[in-house]
Amino acid sequence: MNPLHVELGDRSYPIYIESGIINDSALYKKHIKGRNVLIVADENTSAHYLPALLTALSDFNCQHLSLPAGEAHKNLDTTSLIYDTLMKGRFDRNCTLIALGGGVVGDICGFAAATYQRGVNFLQVPTTLLAQVDSSVGGKTGVNHPLGKNMIGAFHQPSCVIADMATLQTLPDRELKSGLAEVIKYGLIDDAEFFHWITENINDLLTLDPQKLAHTVTTCCANKARIVAADERESGKRALLNLGHTFGHAIETANGYGVWLHGEAISAGMCLAAKFSALAGHMPAEAVTTIEKTLSAAGLPIRPPQDMTSEQCHELMYRDKKVRDNLLTLVLLNNIGDAFLSNDFDQKLLKESLRKEFDTK
Amino acid sequence: MNPLHVELGDRSYPIYIESGIINDSALYKKHIKGRNVLIVADENTSAHYLPALLTALSDFNCQHLSLPAGEAHKNLDTTSLIYDTLMKGRFDRNCTLIALGGGVVGDICGFAAATYQRGVNFLQVPTTLLAQVDSSVGGKTGVNHPLGKNMIGAFHQPSCVIADMATLQTLPDRELKSGLAEVIKYGLIDDAEFFHWITENINDLLTLDPQKLAHTVTTCCANKARIVAADERESGKRALLNLGHTFGHAIETANGYGVWLHGEAISAGMCLAAKFSALAGHMPAEAVTTIEKTLSAAGLPIRPPQDMTSEQCHELMYRDKKVRDNLLTLVLLNNIGDAFLSNDFDQKLLKESLRKEFDTK
Repeated sequence: MNPLHVELGDRSYPIYIESGIINDSALYKKHIKGRNVLIVADENTSAHYLPALLTALSDFNCQHLSLPAGEAHKNLDTTSLIYDTLMKGRFDRNCTLIALGGGVVGDICGFAAATYQRGVNFLQVPTTLLAQVDSSVGGKTGVNHPLGKNMIGAFHQPSCVIADMATLQTLPDRELKSGLAEVIKYGLIDDAEFFHWITENINDLLTLDPQKLAHTVTTCCANKARIVAADERESGKRALLNLGHTFGHAIETANGYGVWLHGEAISAGMCLAAKFSALAGHMPAEAVTTIEKTLSAAGLPIRPPQDMTSEQCHELMYRDKKVRDNLLTLVLLNNIGDAFLSNDFDQKLLKESLRKEFDTK
Repeated sequence: MNPLHVELGDRSYPIYIESGIINDSALYKKHIKGRNVLIVADENTSAHYLPALLTALSDFNCQHLSLPAGEAHKNLDTTSLIYDTLMKGRFDRNCTLIALGGGVVGDICGFAAATYQRGVNFLQVPTTLLAQVDSSVGGKTGVNHPLGKNMIGAFHQPSCVIADMATLQTLPDRELKSGLAEVIKYGLIDDAEFFHWITENINDLLTLDPQKLAHTVTTCCANKARIVAADERESGKRALLNLGHTFGHAIETANGYGVWLHGEAISAGMCLAAKFSALAGHMPAEAVTTIEKTLSAAGLPIRPPQDMTSEQCHELMYRDKKVRDNLLTLVLLNNIGDAFLSNDFDQKLLKESLRKEFDTK
């Protein structure tokens, strides 16, 4: 199978999507620079994939580091564990990091690669649906600050993405569903046809149909590659990929990182975006119902956490990276498959919309 | 006076070198983005310049943060103080950081600017000779790891450099001398005429002759701007600016950060580079004597620390960022004003040279 490509001039790179490629030595050899390799995985992923990968990379000086799993550990302290391992192992600027696992590991490992010796080579080997369809592609790396998601980070593109479809077969159910939130997001943004395909095939996806999962990952990555190539640093269109994320990040921060999975928060966040879009007259109310039905069918939450208030949500949203001089840019919907950016929405109406969702449970 | 320019396409920026410009509101207005400004200074610099600068910036929402002074605090923990202030103050991506002070503050503040919300605007306002002639120009930002200098960082160019010559008039003597080490470095690399001019004028520089200091800063910045424009990411010629730095960083790390000032370590480091260059037959022995005389006249150390061994130095040098697959690139000298890069030097001879300097005191 031919890889997809993210076209970014001299920072272009391939996305390999296939079953059984996680231990393909030839693929790694093509993209590893230097002799020294550090594999960074979370504790769960290590157990599954590390031994075979170490064998596949036996031609290199290969070390590995297991990080504590989960969003709660996506911080500077965990990043320092990577720096320490690199320094103690005398890794020079010509080394390669491999991020093996889900989105959390990819984000931390990518940030370490962006900042170790002012930038070293790294590969993304995503093993969750969420990481395969979204976070491993596009070069956004970073960690959380106690007061806000992904507030410390850098743009740093990997030299390739190796998405082995077979890894999804052992994915815990909750992780699979969390990934489906980002999948549905791509449909909502600008691909109504894909949204309806997901809706029709949601049960096959939930039971891990290999062909349909492969189609899903390929479609999402093709969408993401196209959007990132057009706007690497998010000065415009790329911001559409944040649909549901300003609401969702507020939920993740308010809940405590890791209490809800990222995709769960994004699911509830997309519902909030959809409802506000309807309240503001952009989208028909029926579309909100359709969106909620699909997310529910995927086993995802469509309501925000019980113990969160609209004020808390509003306060956290205005700390988001999409705020400029106190002006928040939201991703709203005209319809399914037709998202747009707005910073001139009615602020009172936003508060009203949040009150309805948060304070009247 | 017309500013110098660092020519880097859409990341080009001016270097203003003049007396009395540190509180020039118009200059700041030209380069500040957004409404929110955080001035980051060290404790010493704050006392001198902060009140007047806050007045000059009264049109902005201006906050300030004082960091503990000195190289020992150039680490991730101190960087986190900046992140915390930015998050608590709800600084968005459209904010501006101002690094006010010496090289340490510039490096930390620049790194925070490179990584806060994946990169925000920042200005360099260097108030030491070392920062004015070297560290504020060129976009190298970063902090130390306990096992190595500047190992965590990013390339992130400022939007301007404001070098007020008047600030040098209150510079502590030891800081002035430390800056002269970097000044002499520019002469040694590729400007023999400038080296001889410094040698002849060293006493005037030590007594803070304003015209001669201005000539010094302008010459160094012009040299640096030219080299950085030709090789922003240090894939070639820019590495010449590291003359004495691989040896010097080893001294700083071995001594404990801050025990010797950066310029002091670089002075001893340049002597080590010069002696090895002579031992390897590249440079006449008389040139080593000339270099040592000038550095001594500037009040700088020309011998490494008493309690450091050659083995310790060698070990730390091979952890340097200039190592690739265990191959170290050194900056050596054919003569005063004629530096070159070498990675095929005689490794045994390097050890012999270090033994002579470190182990036979």
